[in-house]
Amino acid sequence: MFVGLDVGGTTIKAATVDDSGRIVGQPVALATEADRGPEHGLHVMADAIRGAIANAASTIADIAAIGVATPGPIDIPAGMILDTPNLRGWRNVPVRDFVTQSFGRPTAFQNDANAAAVGEGWVGAGRGVRSMIDGRVVDGAHSHGGEIGHIKIEMTNPRLCGCGQRGCLEAYASATAVVARARESLQVDAGHSALHGVSELSARAVFDAAANGDALAQTLVDDTARYLAIGAATLMHVIDPEVIVFAGGMTAAGPALLEAIRRHVKDVAFPVPAARCAIRYSELGMDAGVIGAAGCARQLVEGPGSRRL
Amino acid sequence: MFVGLDVGGTTIKAATVDDSGRIVGQPVALATEADRGPEHGLHVMADAIRGAIANAASTIADIAAIGVATPGPIDIPAGMILDTPNLRGWRNVPVRDFVTQSFGRPTAFQNDANAAAVGEGWVGAGRGVRSMIDGRVVDGAHSHGGEIGHIKIEMTNPRLCGCGQRGCLEAYASATAVVARARESLQVDAGHSALHGVSELSARAVFDAAANGDALAQTLVDDTARYLAIGAATLMHVIDPEVIVFAGGMTAAGPALLEAIRRHVKDVAFPVPAARCAIRYSELGMDAGVIGAAGCARQLVEGPGSRRL
Repeated sequence: MFVGLDVGGTTIKAATVDDSGRIVGQPVALATEADRGPEHGLHVMADAIRGAIANAASTIADIAAIGVATPGPIDIPAGMILDTPNLRGWRNVPVRDFVTQSFGRPTAFQNDANAAAVGEGWVGAGRGVRSMIDGRVVDGAHSHGGEIGHIKIEMTNPRLCGCGQRGCLEAYASATAVVARARESLQVDAGHSALHGVSELSARAVFDAAANGDALAQTLVDDTARYLAIGAATLMHVIDPEVIVFAGGMTAAGPALLEAIRRHVKDVAFPVPAARCAIRYSELGMDAGVIGAAGCARQLVEGPGSRRL
Repeated sequence: MFVGLDVGGTTIKAATVDDSGRIVGQPVALATEADRGPEHGLHVMADAIRGAIANAASTIADIAAIGVATPGPIDIPAGMILDTPNLRGWRNVPVRDFVTQSFGRPTAFQNDANAAAVGEGWVGAGRGVRSMIDGRVVDGAHSHGGEIGHIKIEMTNPRLCGCGQRGCLEAYASATAVVARARESLQVDAGHSALHGVSELSARAVFDAAANGDALAQTLVDDTARYLAIGAATLMHVIDPEVIVFAGGMTAAGPALLEAIRRHVKDVAFPVPAARCAIRYSELGMDAGVIGAAGCARQLVEGPGSRRL
């Protein structure tokens, strides 16, 4: 068995996962409390791993390897979180060595989005797909591959991204960006949109209003689909994958958003990949990270053969 | 030895290449005359291959395999040119089978830009680099990978690309696009630019004027560098390569353009890849295509080991 650890800005989650990609026992989710610093964070990680092993009625002797997924940018050969916007103030944190030394097990390290992709490729929306590089993550020469949210999609008045730069896909199409764009649209709206009456604006509220026929919300959702389609087209023209899996908060928008993305892709991508590349939502949902981190651990100890997931 | 064939919109070029990537004998360059149709084109290809073998004082018995590079989009498993803007009217042309049947040799097939990348990785600007996927081309699930010119960089009033879609890098930063942008700028220029006096406007003329201090030309070159940097940043965030090699007509701009690209990359890409990814010009120049096509042929017959170039 393997333990997958998924470190997020608000929650650190761990689960014990068996060799067929099934979670064994209850996963553990603890508050990251990132503002208390990386030392505290490392101890929360260790607690989460211990809890996940205990919940699987197991001991460390049953665990072949541990996989750790954290937000990027990271340095995979060094095993370090570099300086990530989602964990403010953490800098050059040696996560992998800490886990290896604490548990005495081989430890895989990967960024969270790539780990989630490994999970989906193993037992989720990408299973059975001969994934782009035979099941291996394209983490690149400097551990910065797969930062799909930072594909540049706009040069004219480009929106500021959480990464500190401008024009990134994430600055247009993340759940946070949908809320920001909704606020801007509401400021210039004559006052007819139902969103004016929503006390706490969320991406979910925008998707719900669109489903109920609200014109302003529908424009917001359609624009979001167009942004995601443009990012998807760039991916198709660079790596031409068999499947693109969308995960995270945006999947709450349901099939309408997915359909709109597929429609826009036909307008902006080359006809062949537009027709053949499958566009799907995540099947593992919030578990993709821990299952994928465990999948990375499995790849680490089972050798190259296991890389063909 | 191998034969590399590089099919372009105006010229079909072939060369015999030895196992160390050196061209043997004089390469052959024949006019494509694309408007005479694909049947004629296939016969020109066969003539070019025969000529290259003869120029190497060799016979077909000395040739282990042939590599064919054509403009995309192509279908690699089917061995076909699909429907490419650079060869108008050619559609579903079975290039690979034609070459195999004409010469009785294993025939590799790849798009021209990816073949050039194989050439640079073998004996050019990328040699010695553990290339992104261990020397293999990322041609993707549907032969559309590596279409770097069709990374989307702009959504607002996006320029029309030769591919028929909008906002592609190529529509902003190819030599043709530089000329188009120069014409537009000259129309609104008060009349001070030296480019007004150029009878036949070319990218080269723009680069020369910029080198001579012409302000309008310098803006054009700097904008071109920014567009290329934005495309490079997207590549860094998706596949994070060790090196990005620029080839083609733009290299005529010399070191000033390359320096400007490097400068802009630091503004738009993540700091780690921006600092570590090498940005270079092609070293093989106009020979990259034939050498790379021969490199693809070599990979075809020498097995997976040879893929680690």
